[in-house]
Amino acid sequence: MDDAHSDDLTPAPTGGLPHVVIVGAGFGGLACAQALGRHPVRVTVVDRHNYHLFVPLLYQVATAGLSPADIAEPIRKVLRRHPRIDVVMGEVIGVDLSGRRVLLAGSGHIAYDQLVLATGSAYTYFGHDDWAAHAPGLKSIADARAIRARVLRGFEQAEISRDADEQRRLTTTVIVGGGPTGVEMAGAIAELANWSLQRDFRNIDPRTATVLLIEAGPRILPAFPEPLADYSRRKLEKLGVTVRTGAPVEEVREDGVVIAGRLCPANVIVWGAGIKASPAAAWIGVPPDRLGRIAVEADLSVAGIERVYAIGDTALSLDESGQPLPALAQVAKQQGLHLGRHLPLLVGDGKAIPPFRFRNRGNTAVVGRSSAIFDFGGGRQMKGWLAWILWALIHVYLLVSFEKRLLVSAQWLWRWATYQRGARLITWDTPSDSDPRAAPSSQPGSEPKIPDHRRI
Amino acid sequence: MDDAHSDDLTPAPTGGLPHVVIVGAGFGGLACAQALGRHPVRVTVVDRHNYHLFVPLLYQVATAGLSPADIAEPIRKVLRRHPRIDVVMGEVIGVDLSGRRVLLAGSGHIAYDQLVLATGSAYTYFGHDDWAAHAPGLKSIADARAIRARVLRGFEQAEISRDADEQRRLTTTVIVGGGPTGVEMAGAIAELANWSLQRDFRNIDPRTATVLLIEAGPRILPAFPEPLADYSRRKLEKLGVTVRTGAPVEEVREDGVVIAGRLCPANVIVWGAGIKASPAAAWIGVPPDRLGRIAVEADLSVAGIERVYAIGDTALSLDESGQPLPALAQVAKQQGLHLGRHLPLLVGDGKAIPPFRFRNRGNTAVVGRSSAIFDFGGGRQMKGWLAWILWALIHVYLLVSFEKRLLVSAQWLWRWATYQRGARLITWDTPSDSDPRAAPSSQPGSEPKIPDHRRI
Repeated sequence: MDDAHSDDLTPAPTGGLPHVVIVGAGFGGLACAQALGRHPVRVTVVDRHNYHLFVPLLYQVATAGLSPADIAEPIRKVLRRHPRIDVVMGEVIGVDLSGRRVLLAGSGHIAYDQLVLATGSAYTYFGHDDWAAHAPGLKSIADARAIRARVLRGFEQAEISRDADEQRRLTTTVIVGGGPTGVEMAGAIAELANWSLQRDFRNIDPRTATVLLIEAGPRILPAFPEPLADYSRRKLEKLGVTVRTGAPVEEVREDGVVIAGRLCPANVIVWGAGIKASPAAAWIGVPPDRLGRIAVEADLSVAGIERVYAIGDTALSLDESGQPLPALAQVAKQQGLHLGRHLPLLVGDGKAIPPFRFRNRGNTAVVGRSSAIFDFGGGRQMKGWLAWILWALIHVYLLVSFEKRLLVSAQWLWRWATYQRGARLITWDTPSDSDPRAAPSSQPGSEPKIPDHRRI
Repeated sequence: MDDAHSDDLTPAPTGGLPHVVIVGAGFGGLACAQALGRHPVRVTVVDRHNYHLFVPLLYQVATAGLSPADIAEPIRKVLRRHPRIDVVMGEVIGVDLSGRRVLLAGSGHIAYDQLVLATGSAYTYFGHDDWAAHAPGLKSIADARAIRARVLRGFEQAEISRDADEQRRLTTTVIVGGGPTGVEMAGAIAELANWSLQRDFRNIDPRTATVLLIEAGPRILPAFPEPLADYSRRKLEKLGVTVRTGAPVEEVREDGVVIAGRLCPANVIVWGAGIKASPAAAWIGVPPDRLGRIAVEADLSVAGIERVYAIGDTALSLDESGQPLPALAQVAKQQGLHLGRHLPLLVGDGKAIPPFRFRNRGNTAVVGRSSAIFDFGGGRQMKGWLAWILWALIHVYLLVSFEKRLLVSAQWLWRWATYQRGARLITWDTPSDSDPRAAPSSQPGSEPKIPDHRRI
C-alpha cells in the first residue's frame, strides 16, 4: 500500500456484507444507491460535492429564476433513511484495480467489492480549452452563478455607458449550441430582458437586448423530430431570439465570437455545444471512445475488468439496434436502478446481471413562457402550453424532496403571474466578490464597504 | 476635470431639477431614495452591488436556512416605480467637494447638488486585520456562503476522519462577540447540529458538536437589559452552546482561537466583535471618530461641508441626551426617511432641515427555535415564544417584496415543522469551486468532473 493513500476510509464491515462503492451522486449514482439501500449490502457514495444537483433546471438559476438551493439536495439527506449507506465528500483521483481500492485526493482510499462509476460529463471545447474561460458551460452551480452575474452586470454596465456600440455589446448574449440547454437558455434570457427587466432601466431599453443562438448543424434540436424543432425555432424568434444554423463558431474571444470570419461582439457567451465524459476511463486504464466514454457490456460491466461498472454519461452503452444511448438523465437513472437491483443478487451465488434495456420516457425541452415540446418516440409528439404544463409537473415531481417541490412551484407560479424573477443577484464570491473577468471599472477596490447595518 | 474620472454619469437634467446622489442602498439609502421619489428632484443611487441586502437575516443564510436571493432584492426593482431615480452599480472611491462630484472606480463621476453618504460599516479586528482571513464577519452574501460552507464541510471532514481530536476540532465553531449577531449565529448553528444534521452521519454524532460563544465583556447582549441577557444565556446553554464571558480573544489563528493563553481548536471562527464605519470620512476629508464615523449635526448635515449629509452606520449622530445613536437598521431607516422628506424643501427657498429625532421601535434578538427577546425601552420587555412569533412577523413584514415574504414564510414554516434546513450547500464559486482555506485533502483537482447529466 503506498503512503499517499494510506488512510483507509472504508466503512467498518457490518456482518461481512459486501461493499459497493459508487463514484458520483448524479442521477445514475443516486438511483443505484437508493436501490441498493433495500438490500443487505454496504454502500459508500463518493462525490466532490455535498449535494445532488438537479441539472435540468440549472438554466433557471443561470437566468435568475431560481436559487441554487432550490435545485440542490444534500446527498446525505437523500440517503439518510438507509443505515448501510455511507456518504463521503471527496475527490476521486484514481482506482487501484489490483488492490480493489478507490483513491481519493489527499491521503484516503476506500476498498470495494463492486465499483460503480457514475461520474458524468463536462462540456468539451473541441480542442480549444482556452475558450472555456470566456464561454462557460452550464454544468455546476458556479457556472450558473457566473452566467447570471455576467448577464445582469452587462445590463448594469450598459445603463451607465454612453456609447451605443458598447451598449449593444453589453446586452448581447451568444449561446453556442442548439441543443435543449441552448434553446432553454436562449428563451429564458430573452424573457428576462423582455419582461423582468423591462421597466428597471432609464438609459437603455432591455427589450432591445440581443440573444443569438448559433448552431453548427443545419437545424436546432437535432435530437428532436423536425416539426418540433421548427416550432421551437418559431417560438424563439417570436421571443426576439436570433437563431443562426449552419454557423460553426470559429473562435471564442473575451469580447465575442467569430462566425464566418466576422466578429460578433458579445458580453456573455454560453457554451452548450458538446459534452465529454469525465476521465474515469483513465482511472481504470481502458481506452475511452471519442467522447471519453467507457464501453460497457449489456450488463453495464466494463469488459475485461472485474467488479467494475459504468453508468450514465460515463458509459458507452448500446441499445438493441447497436446505437449508443444518449447522454440523458433518464438513461443514467434507469441504469443506476438496474444495477442497484441486480448487483446484490450477484454477490454470493454468482448470478448474472440481466442485460439493461432503456425505456424511453420521452425527450423534452421548454422554449419559453407557456411553450414546451415533447417527443415520446414512435412519432408521438406534443407541443404548446399543454406540453409546457406537463413539463412543469414532471420537473417539479422529479425534484428530490417535497420541500423543493413546494418552493419551486411557488416561485414558478409567482413568476408566471408577475413576469418577475426572484434571484437577480450579481455575486461571484471570490474573496473580493468580483468577476475575475471584470472590466477595470469594477475592479475590487478595498474601500467602500456598502450598506450593512447590523440590526433592524 | 482630471482625466481619470472624465466619464460623466450624471443623468440628463430633467427640467432643471436638483440632483441628489445617495451612496449606498442599505436601509438608510433606500429609505431616503424612496422618500425623495415622491418629490420633484432627480436622484441617483450608487451601490457596489445590484441588490439591497436584508442583513438582519443574513445569519440564516450562513446557517443553511435561507438562500441569498431570499433576503436580497434588486435595487432597481425596489425603485422602479420612481421615474426620476437612477440606479448606478459602481464603486465610489472619493468625493470631489469643490467640483461637487462623486468619483467612481474606473473613469466615471456623478455630479451632485446634494450628497447623502449611507455607506454602512464593516467588522473591525482591533488592529489585527490578518485575523479577518480566519474569522469572517457576517456582512455580505459572500461572508454568509463562506461560513455556511466551512461549517458544513467541517462535518463532512469529521465524518471521514479517524482521529477523535481532529473530529472534535472539525465540529467546533467559535463565535467571537456576544451581541445579537453572535447570539443568533450560536443558536442557529447549535440547532443545525442538534436537529437538521442529526441523522445524516454514520461515524460522528453531530449533536456532540461544540458551539462556543465568547464575549470579552462581563455578559452577553450588553445593549439589552440584564434579565433578557440572562434569559438568552440560559436558552443558549439549553441548546448546547457554551457561553464564556469575560474572555477576550488574544489571537485568532487558522486552527482556532487563543483565550486566556490557551488554544481552543476550531474549524469555524465567526467574527462579530465590533464594527467600524466605511471610509466615507476620508472621501470628504473630515476626521472620523474612533469607530470611523462622520460627526453630523442634528439635521444630519456634515458640519463645515456644504450639501453633504451622512446617515446610518456612517454617521455619528447624537440623541437628545448627547449619546451616540446605535448602529441599528431602524436608526438608518428613520434618518434616511427624515432626509428624504426634508431635503426637497431645502432646495429653492433655503428652508432648514428640522433636527432628526430617533424613535426607538424596540431592539430584538432571536435565540433559537421558538424564543426571542424584545426590549422596547423604558423597562418594557418581552421574551419567549410570543416574542419569537412577533420577531418572525416583523422580519417577514420588513422584507422588501411580497415575493420574498411569501418564500421566507414558507421556508420558516417548513423548517419549523420538520427541523430541516433547505440550503445546505457547500459552494465557494471560485473558479475551482473550493475554499481558498481548504485543507490539502480537498485541493482543487482538475480531474473528476462530477455528476452532471444533461437532460432528464
